[in-house]
Amino acid sequence: MRDVAIIGAGMTKFGKFLDRSLKDLAREAVQGALDSAGIDKSKLQVAVVGNATAGLITGQEMIRGQVVLRELGIGGIPVINTENACASSSTAFHLGWLYVASGMYDIALVLGMEKLTHEDKRRSFQAIGAAVDVEWVQQMAKAAKEAKEKSSERQPTFEEGAGERRSMFMDFYAVFARRYMERTGATKEDFARVAVKNLYHGSLNPKAQYGGEYTIEDILNAPLVVEPLTRLMCSPISDGAAAVVLVAADKARQFTSRPVYVRASVLASGRDRLPGEPGITTETAQLAYQKAGIGPKDLDVIEVHDASAPAELIIYEELGLCAEGEGPSLIRSGYTKLGGKQPVNTSGGLLAKGHPIGATGVAQICEIFWQLRGEAGARQVEGAKVGLTENGGGMVRGEAAALSIHILSV
Amino acid sequence: MRDVAIIGAGMTKFGKFLDRSLKDLAREAVQGALDSAGIDKSKLQVAVVGNATAGLITGQEMIRGQVVLRELGIGGIPVINTENACASSSTAFHLGWLYVASGMYDIALVLGMEKLTHEDKRRSFQAIGAAVDVEWVQQMAKAAKEAKEKSSERQPTFEEGAGERRSMFMDFYAVFARRYMERTGATKEDFARVAVKNLYHGSLNPKAQYGGEYTIEDILNAPLVVEPLTRLMCSPISDGAAAVVLVAADKARQFTSRPVYVRASVLASGRDRLPGEPGITTETAQLAYQKAGIGPKDLDVIEVHDASAPAELIIYEELGLCAEGEGPSLIRSGYTKLGGKQPVNTSGGLLAKGHPIGATGVAQICEIFWQLRGEAGARQVEGAKVGLTENGGGMVRGEAAALSIHILSV
Repeated sequence: MRDVAIIGAGMTKFGKFLDRSLKDLAREAVQGALDSAGIDKSKLQVAVVGNATAGLITGQEMIRGQVVLRELGIGGIPVINTENACASSSTAFHLGWLYVASGMYDIALVLGMEKLTHEDKRRSFQAIGAAVDVEWVQQMAKAAKEAKEKSSERQPTFEEGAGERRSMFMDFYAVFARRYMERTGATKEDFARVAVKNLYHGSLNPKAQYGGEYTIEDILNAPLVVEPLTRLMCSPISDGAAAVVLVAADKARQFTSRPVYVRASVLASGRDRLPGEPGITTETAQLAYQKAGIGPKDLDVIEVHDASAPAELIIYEELGLCAEGEGPSLIRSGYTKLGGKQPVNTSGGLLAKGHPIGATGVAQICEIFWQLRGEAGARQVEGAKVGLTENGGGMVRGEAAALSIHILSV
Repeated sequence: MRDVAIIGAGMTKFGKFLDRSLKDLAREAVQGALDSAGIDKSKLQVAVVGNATAGLITGQEMIRGQVVLRELGIGGIPVINTENACASSSTAFHLGWLYVASGMYDIALVLGMEKLTHEDKRRSFQAIGAAVDVEWVQQMAKAAKEAKEKSSERQPTFEEGAGERRSMFMDFYAVFARRYMERTGATKEDFARVAVKNLYHGSLNPKAQYGGEYTIEDILNAPLVVEPLTRLMCSPISDGAAAVVLVAADKARQFTSRPVYVRASVLASGRDRLPGEPGITTETAQLAYQKAGIGPKDLDVIEVHDASAPAELIIYEELGLCAEGEGPSLIRSGYTKLGGKQPVNTSGGLLAKGHPIGATGVAQICEIFWQLRGEAGARQVEGAKVGLTENGGGMVRGEAAALSIHILSV
């Protein structure tokens, strides 16, 4: 396996774009990545495309990559379409890396894209609900309905809550958040602090869907989604696309004086665990650190999967940015804010930058690429040399169905 | 890149199984492959899963592989979910091969699975219709509707034909068939001969959906789908799953005395072509022959993508089994029938074995694996040592969106 470098990155602004097609979003991201790499599309040897919900939202299934790439005049090369829920495009990145690291191809395009908005907002939530075991959810919904029929008390049905009026993942995150509060003493204010930080970072990122200077009270006063999560603690419904170009490291300097190297690309799936065993994120991070030959303290800039605000605190501990139980004090100290020792989610994260599911993984890579090249503008982390992305996707039996960690460096 | 071997294969019978779930089909195929390989599931290091329509048929999108594999107690390892329409699982096989060939992992599971039947048969046809540019089809349907409104003559609408009452791919195949008839003098009887042969082969394969001793007249007298294709010249709607286990070639003999080696794994996508330029199948086959260091005459047994009967004749020429224009004389001579010099689709092919889209690619690999190991029972090709699979998927701008060719040998 040889070394691999990223030489270009492009992405659309994230947002709700009912009038933009997947083709349109993909075009902007791919052209941005090619321009940034200074490479012509005819040089691409393989393309890997991550997308999660096009089949359910637009009806376009099976050959999503080919459909958008042919519009751009990219054809003939192998095109891999891959899905892994919210980790779809970090999985695509991992495969693009594998093609180049193996020596099979020298130049790979990786594209993540998602059109998640729909005129009927319930369709977006339903689509997200396909990132769990759908058969199991149907059984659960049936059981909940039967229980309701037997009960005299008025209860919200499963359909009225998770999966219809909100992403059912927020119900999962609410459970994790409540457990985390019990274990560590974290408060709702701590979760709000994560949102305040990431919305501030988002205000410095022209590609972010949301951003601004919010107070803890603003976050706590937003409408409740599911206790303890308010709307501003939950990632929004978003559309967008992001793309990067990968090349063999020994050829990178033919294209750029500032390549960014892939030091570790690790993908895992959930499994049953014994009580007290480290979870999937901890386990995968340890493997990534080992492959990269670094530890968590060596990271200058980090993008994590803050699909909800409490998740970011949990991930601090899983990545080893702090000891177990110290997530709340880390966020309170400003350690992970721009200007702090190890800034997290300088892009705004999923909370502020937005979360177009199949684009998120590559967008995280784009942010670290720009940070390590000194191209992150108002949100630049001075002298950043090493970065990490953490991207989780879907859920089976209470653990992420897919989890990928990438470590990048100049 | 190092050599890779297949050490086990398993598949379900193909057929219409409205009462069987994807989990149930996958379980049988995976367990069959593990048993055949003599390997425990705990030894698997990565899994690649191909599926095309679960999102549209069952609602299960994004993490289809994890959902079925966790049921089998397979977790923790990277799981890649991939789609490439009818070539979904040959794409999965290609990625499994890449993981092992690259040296990243020693042992990979590849699974193809599809549940294409639905109580409402139109849903199955509609799902298949997602293997083209859906936006383009919607535009075409709109234009056809407007043209009909302007015309006084009663015309079938696009919705009444392609995409609703039949797979729209049969309309594409009908066009290719008529062009082929003009170019080569092929007759409807020649297409019927392909169906007669493959249904006969299917009668010898206990896993095949259909089979029997049909006459040319039986085929021609079947209900017309779209001129010149009768129902028995078209692959059916099918459910099923197929799986294989891949290992590094230098470790294969730890598991079996009869490994089957992957000599070439080539994946391509369609592109615009100049008039007279060879098409995607010809081009990809030539690359595969070059990688394997063999020519078409070295093949002992061949599985091709006979989604319609005329396609098989066209593919004979594209693979170089005969010269251009000689497809009709090849089928008339019995050259590609069991007992002939180069038997094609001994499994029954898509026409008789069935065509559960995302399972087809791996099922073709299974057939060659069994043939090269001498395990093909009543349909065994004596002394077969080298085999090829050709698997096409989807369509963009008149050419396959994905095309994969694998060459295997003992």
